[in-house]
Amino acid sequence: MANIRLTRRVHFCAAHRLHNPAFSDEENRRIFGLCNSPNWHGHNYELDVTVEGEPDPGTGYVVDLAELRAVAEEVLRDLDHRNLNLDVPWLQGVLPSTENLVVAIWGRLAPRIPRGRLARLVLYETPRNWAEYSGEP
Amino acid sequence: MANIRLTRRVHFCAAHRLHNPAFSDEENRRIFGLCNSPNWHGHNYELDVTVEGEPDPGTGYVVDLAELRAVAEEVLRDLDHRNLNLDVPWLQGVLPSTENLVVAIWGRLAPRIPRGRLARLVLYETPRNWAEYSGEP
Amino acid sequence: MANIRLTRRVHFCAAHRLHNPAFSDEENRRIFGLCNSPNWHGHNYELDVTVEGEPDPGTGYVVDLAELRAVAEEVLRDLDHRNLNLDVPWLQGVLPSTENLVVAIWGRLAPRIPRGRLARLVLYETPRNWAEYSGEP
Amino acid sequence: MANIRLTRRVHFCAAHRLHNPAFSDEENRRIFGLCNSPNWHGHNYELDVTVEGEPDPGTGYVVDLAELRAVAEEVLRDLDHRNLNLDVPWLQGVLPSTENLVVAIWGRLAPRIPRGRLARLVLYETPRNWAEYSGEP
Amino acid sequence: MANIRLTRRVHFCAAHRLHNPAFSDEENRRIFGLCNSPNWHGHNYELDVTVEGEPDPGTGYVVDLAELRAVAEEVLRDLDHRNLNLDVPWLQGVLPSTENLVVAIWGRLAPRIPRGRLARLVLYETPRNWAEYSGEP
Amino acid sequence: MANIRLTRRVHFCAAHRLHNPAFSDEENRRIFGLCNSPNWHGHNYELDVTVEGEPDPGTGYVVDLAELRAVAEEVLRDLDHRNLNLDVPWLQGVLPSTENLVVAIWGRLAPRIPRGRLARLVLYETPRNWAEYSGEP
Repeated sequence: MANIRLTRRVHFCAAHRLHNPAFSDEENRRIFGLCNSPNWHGHNYELDVTVEGEPDPGTGYVVDLAELRAVAEEVLRDLDHRNLNLDVPWLQGVLPSTENLVVAIWGRLAPRIPRGRLARLVLYETPRNWAEYSGEP
Repeated sequence: MANIRLTRRVHFCAAHRLHNPAFSDEENRRIFGLCNSPNWHGHNYELDVTVEGEPDPGTGYVVDLAELRAVAEEVLRDLDHRNLNLDVPWLQGVLPSTENLVVAIWGRLAPRIPRGRLARLVLYETPRNWAEYSGEP
Repeated sequence: MANIRLTRRVHFCAAHRLHNPAFSDEENRRIFGLCNSPNWHGHNYELDVTVEGEPDPGTGYVVDLAELRAVAEEVLRDLDHRNLNLDVPWLQGVLPSTENLVVAIWGRLAPRIPRGRLARLVLYETPRNWAEYSGEP
Repeated sequence: MANIRLTRRVHFCAAHRLHNPAFSDEENRRIFGLCNSPNWHGHNYELDVTVEGEPDPGTGYVVDLAELRAVAEEVLRDLDHRNLNLDVPWLQGVLPSTENLVVAIWGRLAPRIPRGRLARLVLYETPRNWAEYSGEP
Repeated sequence: MANIRLTRRVHFCAAHRLHNPAFSDEENRRIFGLCNSPNWHGHNYELDVTVEGEPDPGTGYVVDLAELRAVAEEVLRDLDHRNLNLDVPWLQGVLPSTENLVVAIWGRLAPRIPRGRLARLVLYETPRNWAEYSGEP
Repeated sequence: MANIRLTRRVHFCAAHRLHNPAFSDEENRRIFGLCNSPNWHGHNYELDVTVEGEPDPGTGYVVDLAELRAVAEEVLRDLDHRNLNLDVPWLQGVLPSTENLVVAIWGRLAPRIPRGRLARLVLYETPRNWAEYSGEP
């Protein structure tokens, strides 16, 4: 018996803007800088979805990667080529920082994992900055 | 004497949308698919700027990479964290496909190269698709 | 007017073996080394498909990347998760070196390009060795 | 004193096939899809070998990376340019999923680590899917 | 409430040499091999700086990445384009293995983190070997 | 018949300094900035060696990549873990900019290519800047 973590990388691209309506426009500009640009900007996001468990003795799989990919892409379909501030019902009221996005995606993805349990999400906003979440409160 | 091509990679992130106002909304959706999403999407763009020439005998440089980077980032400042359809004076009326963007950036960058001549631009919209332009009509 | 090269990267994985039946077993082992291993080995191949032309004034596209990807994946369907020596009708009699593969793929892909012309293929056998072909005899 | 994890990345390429002889051919095809192709397929595998311990006060090394690389490549010599289903004595009866492979490699590698202790293996089947094992039952 | 790990990658390039003055020249050559070359060699180092904490409810940030980058680059300014054996006051007497470097950088960086707590540093000497430290004694 | 370009990527790490003894110390500092640091700095260099020719009908090879690698590594042995200003006889008097290095490596490598002809060298000083040479005067 062996506890394995299996990861599949998926991706989406989206527009967003960091803006908190509770702050004044000047505060928003000071705090968020260019990320507050009024007409949006965007990113190619990469998401590493890690599922933990024991391999099934018959298939050798912690989880079928084709099923995992299908589940992840179903969740990301809401985000891909969308505006994260405007277009996604389950992101309404969420300031779309990488930190907040990874928690929101966890909430959508965790109950849909077909085998094993969701152990970690890593969301890359660019190749040089990313947020990692393991479901800890 | 040796003819060398020296490249510096720079980057920016931006929102855009593929939409031609001469087409009906239905045609735009059919032709551009998700890239036509009304509330924008975005990318992390990478741009490879290649300058060709002979190294200066005193410095060994085709072009000073610090100067080249400064010039490129000055041009990209108009694009970084912006909306390519709305925010950039020199992209007004340009449908922001990767092909059209690389030509427009060439027009801004070519006259500013401090030494040698601009020989090639490669603009990556994602790590898996990109456009290359060498100034040929 | 501007001559642009647009590239889409696609991938497949396959098994193969370098073995020339005109050589003795000993010659095959001496010439091809580990690549001659009798029970096959394999690679994750990446293929960069470059199409050259002028952007369409209405769409800004040299070629629709979704169409280009569909055409490339149709050709690669014959190779993906296959044995390049045994399973591919159009590779019968071809010794599957990266050089020979890229020429054979060119022959399949060039006539199917939906707009513009196929200008270059780069086939990566590993991230550290690859073959490039531009259709020159 | 400081507990450090030092990693060396090594690689191999191999052919394999996912097939469980306890299943019917039809079940194998349904469960494993293209990975069940009868004439094999293959991958460029990357393996990250992580050793944990305190740096030696004299050398500053948790483990000599040249020794670690030699040990890892000695184990991988059995896999490189081989068929994982047919050619490897210590994989007989192992269905070569990434999960099962990483556990089997752990069993070979852990006792050979020259200094410190094996803390983690990450085995990449492609750049977009991988399995991670830390020796936990 | 959610515990998030946020990472920013930064880089520097430097010269160094592995040499312990307590060893004879012959021992140094035998132990460190090419890394003991008398006239130095060097690397492009990458450093992943990970900060852990809860996102601020107002900003969505575990830590402001612009502030984190500024703090990291202030520490790395002492190392960038320098000789790690000769030029850095806080590395005097430290044998500059990747293991020892990551611990020394931790000591400089941990007290300067503007929000949250430093949770992990990963220092890449090359793309194929790196050291990871989480502050554990 | 088909004209193919086959590439093998090799690497080395080295220390260097940009300094022209014909300039004053102040001019050297002004022109070369941090690259003029007196106690050297260094890089992980990558070199892409491209050989052009027709595949041999018997082997399918433009050039045997194992032979090409051996030849390239023989040339790079003079540079690897060395000081490019001090240690390399064939770089004496050469200011080691990436431009000058790629030309000097061309001079060593071109006559040793075992089959086909050297068509292009790309020398990466970092992942974001590189020089390309095709042997043109």
